[in-house]
Amino acid sequence: MKRYLSIDPWNIVEGGFDPRHHRLSESIFSIGNGKMGMRGNFEEQYSGPSLQGNYLAGIYYPDKTRVGWWKNGYPEYFAKVLNAVHWVGLEVMVDGQPIDLYKNDISRYKAVLDMKKGLLQREFVVKLGEGKDLKICTERFYSMADDEIGAMKYEITPLNFDAKVELISLLDFDVVNNDANYDERFWTEHDSSFDAYIDAVKAVTHKTRFEVWCHGHTSLQTGGQPVTSQDVAATSTCIRRQYSLGLTRGQSVCLTKVVSIVSSFYYARDLLGSTGRKVLEEAVHLGYETLLDRHVQAWAQKWEEHDIRIEGDASAQQAIRYNIFMLNQTYTGKDARLNIGPKGFTGEKYGGSTYWDTEAYCLPFYLSTTGATVAKNLLLYRYHHLPKAIENAEKLGFTRGAALYPMVTMNGEECHNEWEITFEEIHRNGAIAFAIYYYTRYTGDETYLISHGLEVLIGIARFWAQRFSFSKKKGQFVLLGVTGPNEYENNVNNNWYTNYIARWCLSYTVQMLEKYREHEHFEALKARSGFDFQETNYWKEIIDRVYLPYDEKKGIFLQQEGFLDKELIPVSELPESELPLVQHWSWDRILRSCFIKQADVLQGLYFFEEDFDKETIERNFDFYEPMTVHESSLSPCVHSILACRLQRIDKAYQLFLRTSRLDLDNINHDTEDGCHITSMAGTWMSVVIGFGGMKIKDNALSLSPVLPHQWRGLSFRIQFRNHLLEINITPDRCSIHLQSDKPLDILLYGKKATLQPGVNSFSFSTTKP
Amino acid sequence: MKRYLSIDPWNIVEGGFDPRHHRLSESIFSIGNGKMGMRGNFEEQYSGPSLQGNYLAGIYYPDKTRVGWWKNGYPEYFAKVLNAVHWVGLEVMVDGQPIDLYKNDISRYKAVLDMKKGLLQREFVVKLGEGKDLKICTERFYSMADDEIGAMKYEITPLNFDAKVELISLLDFDVVNNDANYDERFWTEHDSSFDAYIDAVKAVTHKTRFEVWCHGHTSLQTGGQPVTSQDVAATSTCIRRQYSLGLTRGQSVCLTKVVSIVSSFYYARDLLGSTGRKVLEEAVHLGYETLLDRHVQAWAQKWEEHDIRIEGDASAQQAIRYNIFMLNQTYTGKDARLNIGPKGFTGEKYGGSTYWDTEAYCLPFYLSTTGATVAKNLLLYRYHHLPKAIENAEKLGFTRGAALYPMVTMNGEECHNEWEITFEEIHRNGAIAFAIYYYTRYTGDETYLISHGLEVLIGIARFWAQRFSFSKKKGQFVLLGVTGPNEYENNVNNNWYTNYIARWCLSYTVQMLEKYREHEHFEALKARSGFDFQETNYWKEIIDRVYLPYDEKKGIFLQQEGFLDKELIPVSELPESELPLVQHWSWDRILRSCFIKQADVLQGLYFFEEDFDKETIERNFDFYEPMTVHESSLSPCVHSILACRLQRIDKAYQLFLRTSRLDLDNINHDTEDGCHITSMAGTWMSVVIGFGGMKIKDNALSLSPVLPHQWRGLSFRIQFRNHLLEINITPDRCSIHLQSDKPLDILLYGKKATLQPGVNSFSFSTTKP
Repeated sequence: MKRYLSIDPWNIVEGGFDPRHHRLSESIFSIGNGKMGMRGNFEEQYSGPSLQGNYLAGIYYPDKTRVGWWKNGYPEYFAKVLNAVHWVGLEVMVDGQPIDLYKNDISRYKAVLDMKKGLLQREFVVKLGEGKDLKICTERFYSMADDEIGAMKYEITPLNFDAKVELISLLDFDVVNNDANYDERFWTEHDSSFDAYIDAVKAVTHKTRFEVWCHGHTSLQTGGQPVTSQDVAATSTCIRRQYSLGLTRGQSVCLTKVVSIVSSFYYARDLLGSTGRKVLEEAVHLGYETLLDRHVQAWAQKWEEHDIRIEGDASAQQAIRYNIFMLNQTYTGKDARLNIGPKGFTGEKYGGSTYWDTEAYCLPFYLSTTGATVAKNLLLYRYHHLPKAIENAEKLGFTRGAALYPMVTMNGEECHNEWEITFEEIHRNGAIAFAIYYYTRYTGDETYLISHGLEVLIGIARFWAQRFSFSKKKGQFVLLGVTGPNEYENNVNNNWYTNYIARWCLSYTVQMLEKYREHEHFEALKARSGFDFQETNYWKEIIDRVYLPYDEKKGIFLQQEGFLDKELIPVSELPESELPLVQHWSWDRILRSCFIKQADVLQGLYFFEEDFDKETIERNFDFYEPMTVHESSLSPCVHSILACRLQRIDKAYQLFLRTSRLDLDNINHDTEDGCHITSMAGTWMSVVIGFGGMKIKDNALSLSPVLPHQWRGLSFRIQFRNHLLEINITPDRCSIHLQSDKPLDILLYGKKATLQPGVNSFSFSTTKP
Repeated sequence: MKRYLSIDPWNIVEGGFDPRHHRLSESIFSIGNGKMGMRGNFEEQYSGPSLQGNYLAGIYYPDKTRVGWWKNGYPEYFAKVLNAVHWVGLEVMVDGQPIDLYKNDISRYKAVLDMKKGLLQREFVVKLGEGKDLKICTERFYSMADDEIGAMKYEITPLNFDAKVELISLLDFDVVNNDANYDERFWTEHDSSFDAYIDAVKAVTHKTRFEVWCHGHTSLQTGGQPVTSQDVAATSTCIRRQYSLGLTRGQSVCLTKVVSIVSSFYYARDLLGSTGRKVLEEAVHLGYETLLDRHVQAWAQKWEEHDIRIEGDASAQQAIRYNIFMLNQTYTGKDARLNIGPKGFTGEKYGGSTYWDTEAYCLPFYLSTTGATVAKNLLLYRYHHLPKAIENAEKLGFTRGAALYPMVTMNGEECHNEWEITFEEIHRNGAIAFAIYYYTRYTGDETYLISHGLEVLIGIARFWAQRFSFSKKKGQFVLLGVTGPNEYENNVNNNWYTNYIARWCLSYTVQMLEKYREHEHFEALKARSGFDFQETNYWKEIIDRVYLPYDEKKGIFLQQEGFLDKELIPVSELPESELPLVQHWSWDRILRSCFIKQADVLQGLYFFEEDFDKETIERNFDFYEPMTVHESSLSPCVHSILACRLQRIDKAYQLFLRTSRLDLDNINHDTEDGCHITSMAGTWMSVVIGFGGMKIKDNALSLSPVLPHQWRGLSFRIQFRNHLLEINITPDRCSIHLQSDKPLDILLYGKKATLQPGVNSFSFSTTKP
């Protein structure tokens, strides 16, 4: 299964069709523009196994919770990413035979996802029997320039026969979610209309009452002449516009379809129909080629900001670009109500749109590549959900403005329904606080902290203060009953990572409150939050006496209390056939084993690197990494970064491949459900923060590049405090192009260096730093 | 809500109708005969909230598992107790008005469950308006003598008007389960037939293909004359036999319906129709009154064995009889394929039929009251499931014949689907071994142990040997990731109770294997189980080095490692409004609190009383009981027994009331879903083992009666090794009637006494022993 796609620096190429890979390819070939996206479903009918998926950012359905045994405090529903209007659909009949790649013989199949242009293209020859060969070429994109527009082309050529062709262009809103808990239909109140020129379908979601309109314009051309439609058949859910024509041998017909999709998420309901039509009319007026140009230009701009070049390792080059490409397709940062779903627009799985992935993994990517405005929208998203986070904590028995952010959410309400996650995986609150710190530290700009961040920090600090309990036995504060980022342990006491980040939250909040107590906005903050400095007395008591499990003899932090009672076995001793554990072992066996999904002690050492010396990081890395199965897609990247810090470059490279090619090589055997979008930001981190050694130290940008021996060069761009830096690393030098009108002091391998505008070049051995 | 039923020594009386209590009354007024049973649903139509329930022992449906997030190892289905044919149903129209107690005005309503006779009766007057009063009297039973027969009478009398009456007698197999996971219909392949004399409906369960036939014979009499039916309307699922007649003022009409219910659980499928008809014909030939006589006689025999008399406390008297009555209605011990469902025939909830309740709570009851044969059937049930228990363990990764009995089962396969229970609440294996020990110790008969028990013990010992792991840190064997009987802790390490009983299992198994190694059946056992004495070397290593958490300072066993890190608060400090916790607190809050559903350390001290001195029991009782919320119905009885042992008679009495009147007073606010059948055996234990002080010591029966000051007398009967003893306890004496032809040596308050056949009387203060 692995490597069925070819290696290419700018393209994902599938050079042949195999229905066993089809669902996987549909995930890989997903396209999107941050506002909407779709899986790589075929245009023509396909009767084999397939997951049809068309998704719109912000449009969700609260699907009634399904659990075996209800626990008090579970959320009533799980917000599902919603499968919406399927507009690329066609029915194609040639000489009375329906085209269906599951049934037809095909040859010369090639699908190409052109990442540079953001364009999905396919071409193939259908062998219709009796020696009839039919060539089909397709192309589609979701416009990055005009973000309510999708467009496609579908060209048919009978290569060696005269053909009678029937084509039906569909706008189909008769769709369901595969993962509906009770086979419910999420869309109701369908309607459709058409005229000679434009088709339209609309639907409204049950319960949430989101309204969506899709307007479509289909045109057919052959030999420079338009073909008009014979007939249009419409139901309330689907419009079928029908064409019929004869083609002579070698003559092509090309169908072009342009659609606009607008929703009540952006527009007043009563204007939706007219707006959608207007948007479409403008696009049709521009024409397909112009739309495509604008789209490609927009992508060129994106690549200008985001591209990473890796020399000498085509597979890594392709992978990093794919990761960056997918992230940009998923989230563009224009709207603080949106976020980055774990599957983006590539599948239904996991529902919700926001996990702690956003703060811990995605924020650094967007902050360094697209700048502070986009990153700030990610922070604002949580700020706007603060009242819901307070409500959520209240449901669990917390009081006085304590905020527990949800594990999974769409609109600020908790969606997840496993007690060990929903109620116990509370470290997410830590990551949300840490993101405020990360943003502030990176930008050097404390205005967000003052205007919004502090209020979030107060809610989070209040939560931790109530969640810690005092152990008389230990004479210390403890966190009982938690699940750490390593979800292969549930309901443990004193997870080191959680205790550490909780203490950090309290401490950072106290520091920042004291720093800004005289600030002009402080009184307003107090009024909004009801904050009183007296609260911090107890917080400080906790800060001074948090229990952090540690083993003196081994000199390691304990993942949780009692971890050393386990039988400690390295992953290397497990039979290959039992991996991934989650697919082969019962849950209890995983839980009581030493094996780690993602090592959270190491996650903590990554977040708080400056608190620890290298020997401590090394001892913990050497203890935990060998027991880590990396069955969370978020795991390898952080381990790769730490391996870089420890100059374990080979290890770092291995782990980088695991994160960067996770979907392209289907490493976790689950990409058919969708791509692992948020971990793609982790891939970027492993390059820029890992191999690039980027961090903020002493209020300055710090770089310590190391280069795997597989690479001849690495270059990436980052935005930093109104400077744009292009960093080029080769085995023996590091040159930094500073695009700025001012010099910039940075740290290079820990030493101060002043960059001048233009190219700055430094000689180093980056492979053996 | 509490005490809406009147106190009466032999009857449960509802003196008035309140639709708000209807579902609760339906549970309380359930009837059954061990083979089948039904909730106290009304005969006539009732349009208000109601849970219709008719259940047949052994007939179940494997309902596809519903979980939020699938875990490897979960069972595919949950075996559901199946709602079956509703045969008591009638439609009654008087002067064109349908009788429906939810809508009609009614007066003089009285429902009586006569526990002595096993008879449910109701009478009431329906006020039809315009001054018309209609009296209705009903009666029904499931024959304890003829266990495939149910019978009912329904008498209508217009008290003060001439009435036109229409009556439709139903056999209705168009039924569903309320708790179906996916609203599936569990019965398919319905069929029906009728002739002038007999109606019949049949149905087959989907998947399991159980076939059930219900034959019914309805007759109507008025003034000594039969009324014939006008019409019979049948669909495949339901037969409606229709009568219509005029009654003059004061004239009664009485409908009698007798049914037989037979199933493929007992008969070959091709004989089912004819067998059911034959069984019914014989019953009809006997006639209703004879059937009733036989039934009442059978109950008289039951009461002869089971009755407990409590003098001076009518509420306790009623309660203990209700508990004994329901246990006998649920399980009669004739068939080793059947077991005691937690709700018996009183509701759908919990599905399955067998929990560890059977071994830990029900076995002592049946063993002492109905004798060794019935108790042995309970043991054989598990013996027959040994291969499934081995399969179950294999699914979780265990090997070489290790057996893990399921948490919930119908046919030996696991049904439960919460990982913290299914995979972790493994102490059930201990209770199953302990039951073999209990039976053997009580009967003094080791033949079951040798012929069957040892094979089960080997499977269980193998499981524990693999489940223990060695902690290098502790230098001891540990059980990581378990849930004890206190289900308000999940996934803990070293639950004292589990570790203790696991060690005991290994130790008892080794002892018994060594004891019987020369037995003539031993080679056959080795052949069946593949057992080799070498296995015991490792078992002995474990036995010697099991970690049992203990706190030196407090002198208590720790419920689990780390328990003392919790904030320890007595239940008495909780606001009443937050109880029961499970209905008011989020699950995580319960888990990290000190509050205990049932104190499993105390369960262990009860099981293994002889291993501990009184001071140890007292220290642990005083530490744990105050933190115990008793939110398991199985909790109060064991605590009551220990309180008796510690001469805390008031405490014991309080706890006895809580278990004995759990359903009658709806203490847990959930009896509307069905009664807590298995905990009723715990009530019996709290009387006989608690107040009676019954145990086996030095291979002799030991009694140490104590009497709550509320009671003037207590008497109960037990069977013990071919002796029948009736024990009468008053505040100042204990007399024991030995029905036997031989004397019996017993221990009375720890001192040896020889009982002679006939009455033996001893003077004691039983209230201050």
